[in-house]
Amino acid sequence: MNPPANITDPLVLFMPSGKRGRFPVGTTVLDAARQLGVYVESVCGGRATCGRCQVEVQEGNFAKHKIVSSNDHISALGAKEQRYAAVRNLMEGRRLSCSATIQGDLVIDVPQDTVVNAQTIRKAATDRIIERNPAVQLCYVEVDEPDMHKPLGDLDRLKVMLEKDWGWQDLLVSQHLLPQVQGILRKGGWSVTAAIHRDLDSSRPTIISLSPGLKNEAYGIACDIGSTTIAMHLVSLLSGRILATSGTSNPQIRFGEDLMSRVSYVMMNPDGREAMTRAVRDAVNELTAKVCDESGVDRNDILDAVFVCNPIMHHLFLGIDPTELGQAPFALAVSGAVHTWASEINLKINTGARVYMLPCIAGHVGADAAGATLSEGPYRQDKMMLLVDVGTNAEIVLGNRSRVVAASSPTGPAFEGAEISSGQRAAPGAIERVRIDPETLEPKYRVIGSEKWSDEAGFDEAVQATGVTGICGSAIIEVVAEMYLSGVISEDGVVDGSLAARSPRIVQNGRTWSYLLRDGEPRITITQNDVRAIQLAKAALYAGIKLLMEKQGVETVDMIRFAGAFGSFIDPKYAMVLGLIPDCALDEVKAVGNAAGTGALMALLNRDYRREIEKEVAGIEKIETALEPHFQQLFIDAMALPNKVDPFPKLSAAVKLPPRKTVSAEGVAGDTAPRRRGREGHAARRARD
Amino acid sequence: MNPPANITDPLVLFMPSGKRGRFPVGTTVLDAARQLGVYVESVCGGRATCGRCQVEVQEGNFAKHKIVSSNDHISALGAKEQRYAAVRNLMEGRRLSCSATIQGDLVIDVPQDTVVNAQTIRKAATDRIIERNPAVQLCYVEVDEPDMHKPLGDLDRLKVMLEKDWGWQDLLVSQHLLPQVQGILRKGGWSVTAAIHRDLDSSRPTIISLSPGLKNEAYGIACDIGSTTIAMHLVSLLSGRILATSGTSNPQIRFGEDLMSRVSYVMMNPDGREAMTRAVRDAVNELTAKVCDESGVDRNDILDAVFVCNPIMHHLFLGIDPTELGQAPFALAVSGAVHTWASEINLKINTGARVYMLPCIAGHVGADAAGATLSEGPYRQDKMMLLVDVGTNAEIVLGNRSRVVAASSPTGPAFEGAEISSGQRAAPGAIERVRIDPETLEPKYRVIGSEKWSDEAGFDEAVQATGVTGICGSAIIEVVAEMYLSGVISEDGVVDGSLAARSPRIVQNGRTWSYLLRDGEPRITITQNDVRAIQLAKAALYAGIKLLMEKQGVETVDMIRFAGAFGSFIDPKYAMVLGLIPDCALDEVKAVGNAAGTGALMALLNRDYRREIEKEVAGIEKIETALEPHFQQLFIDAMALPNKVDPFPKLSAAVKLPPRKTVSAEGVAGDTAPRRRGREGHAARRARD
Repeated sequence: MNPPANITDPLVLFMPSGKRGRFPVGTTVLDAARQLGVYVESVCGGRATCGRCQVEVQEGNFAKHKIVSSNDHISALGAKEQRYAAVRNLMEGRRLSCSATIQGDLVIDVPQDTVVNAQTIRKAATDRIIERNPAVQLCYVEVDEPDMHKPLGDLDRLKVMLEKDWGWQDLLVSQHLLPQVQGILRKGGWSVTAAIHRDLDSSRPTIISLSPGLKNEAYGIACDIGSTTIAMHLVSLLSGRILATSGTSNPQIRFGEDLMSRVSYVMMNPDGREAMTRAVRDAVNELTAKVCDESGVDRNDILDAVFVCNPIMHHLFLGIDPTELGQAPFALAVSGAVHTWASEINLKINTGARVYMLPCIAGHVGADAAGATLSEGPYRQDKMMLLVDVGTNAEIVLGNRSRVVAASSPTGPAFEGAEISSGQRAAPGAIERVRIDPETLEPKYRVIGSEKWSDEAGFDEAVQATGVTGICGSAIIEVVAEMYLSGVISEDGVVDGSLAARSPRIVQNGRTWSYLLRDGEPRITITQNDVRAIQLAKAALYAGIKLLMEKQGVETVDMIRFAGAFGSFIDPKYAMVLGLIPDCALDEVKAVGNAAGTGALMALLNRDYRREIEKEVAGIEKIETALEPHFQQLFIDAMALPNKVDPFPKLSAAVKLPPRKTVSAEGVAGDTAPRRRGREGHAARRARD
Repeated sequence: MNPPANITDPLVLFMPSGKRGRFPVGTTVLDAARQLGVYVESVCGGRATCGRCQVEVQEGNFAKHKIVSSNDHISALGAKEQRYAAVRNLMEGRRLSCSATIQGDLVIDVPQDTVVNAQTIRKAATDRIIERNPAVQLCYVEVDEPDMHKPLGDLDRLKVMLEKDWGWQDLLVSQHLLPQVQGILRKGGWSVTAAIHRDLDSSRPTIISLSPGLKNEAYGIACDIGSTTIAMHLVSLLSGRILATSGTSNPQIRFGEDLMSRVSYVMMNPDGREAMTRAVRDAVNELTAKVCDESGVDRNDILDAVFVCNPIMHHLFLGIDPTELGQAPFALAVSGAVHTWASEINLKINTGARVYMLPCIAGHVGADAAGATLSEGPYRQDKMMLLVDVGTNAEIVLGNRSRVVAASSPTGPAFEGAEISSGQRAAPGAIERVRIDPETLEPKYRVIGSEKWSDEAGFDEAVQATGVTGICGSAIIEVVAEMYLSGVISEDGVVDGSLAARSPRIVQNGRTWSYLLRDGEPRITITQNDVRAIQLAKAALYAGIKLLMEKQGVETVDMIRFAGAFGSFIDPKYAMVLGLIPDCALDEVKAVGNAAGTGALMALLNRDYRREIEKEVAGIEKIETALEPHFQQLFIDAMALPNKVDPFPKLSAAVKLPPRKTVSAEGVAGDTAPRRRGREGHAARRARD
């Protein structure tokens, strides 16, 4: 600790955190940062060899900042820095904060992209700058050689130096390192880099890995295990850079397409749980190998891992029987954050690596929803934010700084193209965009793999390789919405057979009518049943949202965030036209991609985010739709398209909606509600995803 | 917390700790004990069902104590206590401290032998009363059933109750329990007993085991892994009672009789370390099975384990290559205390069980010496205590409250009967006691397995089954000492051939003379070489002791403690006559048995002892005899028997020593010192044990 500063000492401001303080002349920039709690990485412990502590120094008169070339507010380049700059190429304007000392007022920019060893950097999955404070820190030390006069063990002398140089007290040591410590110290000529893991401040820090000499890199993985897809980021814990992002199918699909059939598989097969646990862990290991291959990283250099998953995947991944989640009261074995070791769940990364799993919010609102909540941060907003992650279960979070509520709603698989006559997964050949001319009722569409619309010249050639094979989830939303906007269907979702008189696109199909999207092979129609399936799914989602809005006592929301793959492909305008989501200014509706994965990444790079989301999840009010008698009525009301029941003035301002009609809500309810309560119970549907 | 007490509140004194304090009327005795830091076990959390918190209550006027029958200083027997007494037989005078409340001044005896479930109790290995404060605590709780309105996980609701009923905050959970928690809670009807492990106060407490319903017993093992023998106590962590004590041979003997040959085996064989680690762990597992069988305890109920070993066994047991210990500077991989999980070193006890290993003092003064130091506590004495554990290496600790020094000395295997012409291990048929008539020079002896002396009627019949097969270590000390006392050998250890004229027991053997202890089959003689071997061994031990005495600046010691098997069998008088140990009042010389094992037991039953010995070991000054130029001279001087160089006035007062002769010390040195420095180097010898 430096002596206490006084008012005449130089003032130093760190950006982007904005933290500031006064420090005596001669204080190193690194010391100043640490005293203010500004995270600046340093591996070599002030030896000016690792280069991790680079900062950009600006003269601070706090009115206008100018890049320092030669100024007197920071010490001149010392011998150590000159040596580093000569060998490692220190960028113009950058200084090593362990060597540069404060001589006057300064503004210090802490770069969030310190690249020390050139690495192939892939496009970041998120543009967000995540301030770093990882749970793992690399600490280089030079250890005294053994001395018969002071017969302290090799490991004990290492600990002495970690306390002396880095201030680590009472370090625990991972058992697997005991047999290695002597060899590593001798290989490194008594210099060694220790990886120290400390997640909770109240837990004892632990040496989890040792490397001979100076080890200047450590990696982590952030992984979202979904029912159908597993997505992973490989990231440098030191620079915060994402080195690779990849995904794979969840191999558990062979045990059952949806989550409920996987729970059934566990219940029916004595070794079902074990087989599924093995399958998902194997897939995570293979994906890890893939991101390592892509980026040239050794999997043994991965020292930390963060996972988010829905509750059933969470349990299966941890080796917990998910049966309780398949039936009321949907009891989670563990809802709080899980801290464990990679080796305990058979992950093939560094033997000492740690694993953190975000907390689950409820039996149907998992750690993935917690990850999305962390990423989008409704609780950081004054505005009322709606966060929706749509799968076969929709996870819904609604709130702002003062209160957050959450629920899940059983949307079923229609949004993913299942239960739709021409539905298919998003893949080349699938229709992904649709427009219907309101005058002629003629459609045009685009398929995945081609940029051309179907009415453009050269379309047939462009899709020759794939053909046109079906219609994917996001396009189903569009086509039904376009059918509504063009008057093909009413607010109640009924295909208007009278239009057959003016368009060959309206075709009869038994007792109901369909819309012919494509004639040819295959023939693609949107049937009355397809519209009903979409109505059911959107009604479930909208009813859940309305329930939460009622809990919050709000009539409108200020911002909408669509998370997940479905959210990424869907056009928010059409989602609103169909009434999946409530009325909102269109520019406040955004698709945020894999927000759950981004949340995992944040928790990986900064352990403060772990505490933040643990605290927030504990405070989130969980609404169980099954226990709300009002939910059923909300669901029935939500079958209708916008403006039937609820006004959508903001949407109406942007999109010309058809005039309101007067068909009774009862008629819709009578048509559809019984189907929903058919073969599958409420519980079964909601356990899907 | 109760409200602060004031001077008019009743005064309560707890025995045997002597802690006292004032508490408001109505405070439970258990609360009072906890506030004073008096350890009283309680599993059921004040439900008066486990019976673990029994105390004996005496009325306190602090002048004379009388057992309470009906007094007004303690509350009357309440309903819960009456129910417990009816069902479980509460002994006269005992109360459940969770129910009984303070009504006036009291003296509370906390019994150290609370027997709740009748168990076969074996004779305690130590008479010591060890105050208990184990690292593992059992905590019974009743958990709320799952509630869809508050979707906290089963484990999380369990943690809530552990905080509410027991005050545990921020509990970690052993990973292996996650898949079990739901089944256990349901099996126990939402009541469960959690085993919480907390060793260091600075570490986070961890749930290591869960049992359905009320689990009222937990066990631990304390184990001393020696080079030749492994000894184990099985003990109740709740009552402190030893349920079984047993031993087995160290199977590593097949890799090499002494430790140095085992180190060589590791160096010569690629999988040598692994094979030896497996061998010793298997032996510990078999011994655990044995003590469990003997006492009817399920090995899965063993939740904590403490080990002491010499440094090489310590490393092999932990899976660490001991090669560095076989050569200067004898670097330990780890000298500090080791905390690990039983599962990490393949111990077959409860999956969540923890392992603690005492710190090593130096490369040749192991955790076993630390255990003996904890047990005998030189640092707790004002008097200067010498603590000696003799194996093929002698571990020597000398000190008192103000300073403790330690060393090891290479005594070699002579004390164990090796290198002695008729030597053998202690086993039936081996001579264990010897007397020589100073007038006639006729011997008498006793053999292991018979109570009769060889000159008593019926001796031949008594030893018929075993025969007389050789002479064991302790008897070698006696016979050489008796030879000295009867004048057969001089202070320089030379057998006086001139005595052949008056006794047929003095027989020629080439150029030297021998003493004929037994004529017959086998013929047992003590040769000049035998005497020399004992002299070398005792010189090494005595020189080490003298070195430490010089470091302490003392001429005499006040107390001597002989630890280990050798120390148990040897007669301290003869050890002193031969000059293994320095002059001391004979009644201050005691054999303390397996003090290392007792130290392990203390550390098992009370985690405060772990902190105590860690602190003490850090403060012990380690003397490396190999680095002390003076050691060689001390060694040469120590070849002579007592009174030749050092006066032994206290011994002389108790035993009639032969008159001092005047043979020069140089003659002795010339005779013996070169042999010692022969084939084996100093380092090799000292690494043996």
